Amino acid sequence: MSALDPARTVAELRALRALTGDEHGAQRLAWTPGWATARSWFGEQLAGLPVTREVDEAGNVWVTLPGASPTSVLMGGHLDSVPNGGWLDGTLNVLAGLEVLRRLAAEGTPPVTVKLVDWADEEGARFGRSLIGSSACSGNFDPALLGALRDADGVTLRAAMGASGIDIDRAPAARSRLADVAAYVELHIEQGPVLERLGLPLAAVVGTTGIERHRVTFTGQAAHAGSTPMDSRRDPLAAAARLLLEVREIARRGGGVGTVGSVVARPGIVTAVAGECDVLLDQRHVAAGPLAAMHAEARAAAARIAVEEDVGSAWEPILELAPTHFHPELIALCDDAVREIAGTSHRMPSGPGHDAIETARAGVPTVMMFVQSLRGLSHAKEEDTLPGHLELAVRAFDRLVDKTIAWAHARPA
Amino acid sequence: MSALDPARTVAELRALRALTGDEHGAQRLAWTPGWATARSWFGEQLAGLPVTREVDEAGNVWVTLPGASPTSVLMGGHLDSVPNGGWLDGTLNVLAGLEVLRRLAAEGTPPVTVKLVDWADEEGARFGRSLIGSSACSGNFDPALLGALRDADGVTLRAAMGASGIDIDRAPAARSRLADVAAYVELHIEQGPVLERLGLPLAAVVGTTGIERHRVTFTGQAAHAGSTPMDSRRDPLAAAARLLLEVREIARRGGGVGTVGSVVARPGIVTAVAGECDVLLDQRHVAAGPLAAMHAEARAAAARIAVEEDVGSAWEPILELAPTHFHPELIALCDDAVREIAGTSHRMPSGPGHDAIETARAGVPTVMMFVQSLRGLSHAKEEDTLPGHLELAVRAFDRLVDKTIAWAHARPA
Repeated sequence: MSALDPARTVAELRALRALTGDEHGAQRLAWTPGWATARSWFGEQLAGLPVTREVDEAGNVWVTLPGASPTSVLMGGHLDSVPNGGWLDGTLNVLAGLEVLRRLAAEGTPPVTVKLVDWADEEGARFGRSLIGSSACSGNFDPALLGALRDADGVTLRAAMGASGIDIDRAPAARSRLADVAAYVELHIEQGPVLERLGLPLAAVVGTTGIERHRVTFTGQAAHAGSTPMDSRRDPLAAAARLLLEVREIARRGGGVGTVGSVVARPGIVTAVAGECDVLLDQRHVAAGPLAAMHAEARAAAARIAVEEDVGSAWEPILELAPTHFHPELIALCDDAVREIAGTSHRMPSGPGHDAIETARAGVPTVMMFVQSLRGLSHAKEEDTLPGHLELAVRAFDRLVDKTIAWAHARPA
Repeated sequence: MSALDPARTVAELRALRALTGDEHGAQRLAWTPGWATARSWFGEQLAGLPVTREVDEAGNVWVTLPGASPTSVLMGGHLDSVPNGGWLDGTLNVLAGLEVLRRLAAEGTPPVTVKLVDWADEEGARFGRSLIGSSACSGNFDPALLGALRDADGVTLRAAMGASGIDIDRAPAARSRLADVAAYVELHIEQGPVLERLGLPLAAVVGTTGIERHRVTFTGQAAHAGSTPMDSRRDPLAAAARLLLEVREIARRGGGVGTVGSVVARPGIVTAVAGECDVLLDQRHVAAGPLAAMHAEARAAAARIAVEEDVGSAWEPILELAPTHFHPELIALCDDAVREIAGTSHRMPSGPGHDAIETARAGVPTVMMFVQSLRGLSHAKEEDTLPGHLELAVRAFDRLVDKTIAWAHARPA
């Protein structure tokens, strides 16, 4: 009889919500007291388990269940949330991992070491750069650059980490933590509407989409809204409107997504044709070639629109991220685990970024499992998943960990 | 020989610019020291003229050249500017009026009284409500409502006027000032590109356009930019983009203007499909019927777009202003004056609002004269008009005043 108790995970998720949430949602912003409360609570849940708990140089918390071999299978998640966040984003992963550790510990020493990491500052909501702790482990972390990032109050990431007892200059040393890791597995809520629309609870994630994120600035001529005839206008907001609609068509044709999340006009008053505007553009595709094509189409559209509207256009990159492909054998194991528990599986990419990107970038065989989100909502207090689906997710994730342990154990070192 | 010296007006405009402007433009925001400096300088220019200077209950400055009859012809302008404003907007009117007063005074007592008013706070740039002083004279002034308006620092209009020695509760008493006024004439820069495109220096203004100004709010569903497929989105920014482009087409078809000056998305971040956005919409037409039709078309378009995009839409009126029609006989006199000085005249509406709207609303026969603006720019330091055109404007305005005096004199009381 298995000691796995998925209902306990749901109960723990609710307890954590009650402890660190308010009427606006989860309040576990990284490097703040709410986050520290969540981590301290999590530490208490480890009592009685034959595990060690360590904080690494980047602030990640590592829980280790020693196995017969130092080769490790790593489960991961994050207890930090965005402000007014959801109760499941990141925490489901951690608490499902805890439940799997309990089941494994109850069964004796596993053939490989099994670890659970609570990554530090996955969300990046305060300093604008996500995947802080996992990028330190993957080697994609520049303390000088990142330490200078400031929050809305002018506090630097260096100071915020320092206040949590972390010396940012030593964070890259966390890289050694992945040396023994043979595989990384992460369960996460989908944060999108795909599984709900398909009527499926679970999916194997094949990778994360590449991202082209840019600021496009159109420059026309500010003019009086009352005195400037329509045919004399050089309206950058009109160019922005046309680009937004083009970006949507490009995404539909290209099979990816394309979003304009903000258009800021200057002077931005009701009595003036705008003189300038900034468009925040985000395009994603699971494959590099189609993403590049979508992006080239957006640039061509902006250039054509700029000529037609007689405005200037300038592009400033914010983030250019290549697609991440998860490990084919682990994807197959994940597919199997999902099918065993839910009957049907589905393979899909992840649009949102996750710590699994960093482990994959570090060369660690990686896979993720998604559980259905209700109404596709996340990063909001409305974020939710059916309790029954949460339990299925814990079961399927447990299956995936078992399969991954066997896979890692059988693999030549 | 006439004493009229239009070059002096240009020199005085430059002197005022040097006194009250900086590298960012004119700094004569109403109820601030820069404005007080301009008004004090203007008072000094009256020295030696047989005129009286009075400040009324609303803060308007009245300069009176007594005539044989108390019946008055009133010239008007305003010395206040927007922040970083232009050197001519409002001040050309005042200083051209001063030059006309000098010419008239040199010729002896005119048959009717001639007055020049420097309206208080025409721009409304600080408290968001324009035509403050002139609306007190026209009776469209509610001290309780207006006194509570606050600037960006939280200062009320009541307090700002109080600091300038004006009791806002007494402002409506300024209404008596228009009792003797038989006609109101105002020279102004066009603030648009029409005359420059026509190659004409001057025009007679037939009235001001009506305005439909509204805030349109589209409500969709905020969603993750990476995880939400294109066909699952309810994107209010897409609706805003489509409305902006429709508003433009509606204006082109309808012969008016239509402007979206700002689109503000919430949350307005690059990683989210917006959940809500506000569109600031301004539509203008010189005729009430076509304006109503344009506005109805915009509402119908928004409703159709909302259905197609599966978003909600709500309208909140900001300003609904009927077109103002100037006095046909005064328009004819203005046309004549322009033609005498410039050879060719042109009749056109004004898109921007002016104090002349308030005198017309008060039932005072009113007309305006426009002089060409370069590149249609105003409310900016780049605002400019050729010196030769400024001089032509002073000459033509002087002609218009003379004709208006004769018209007022001949009119039954």
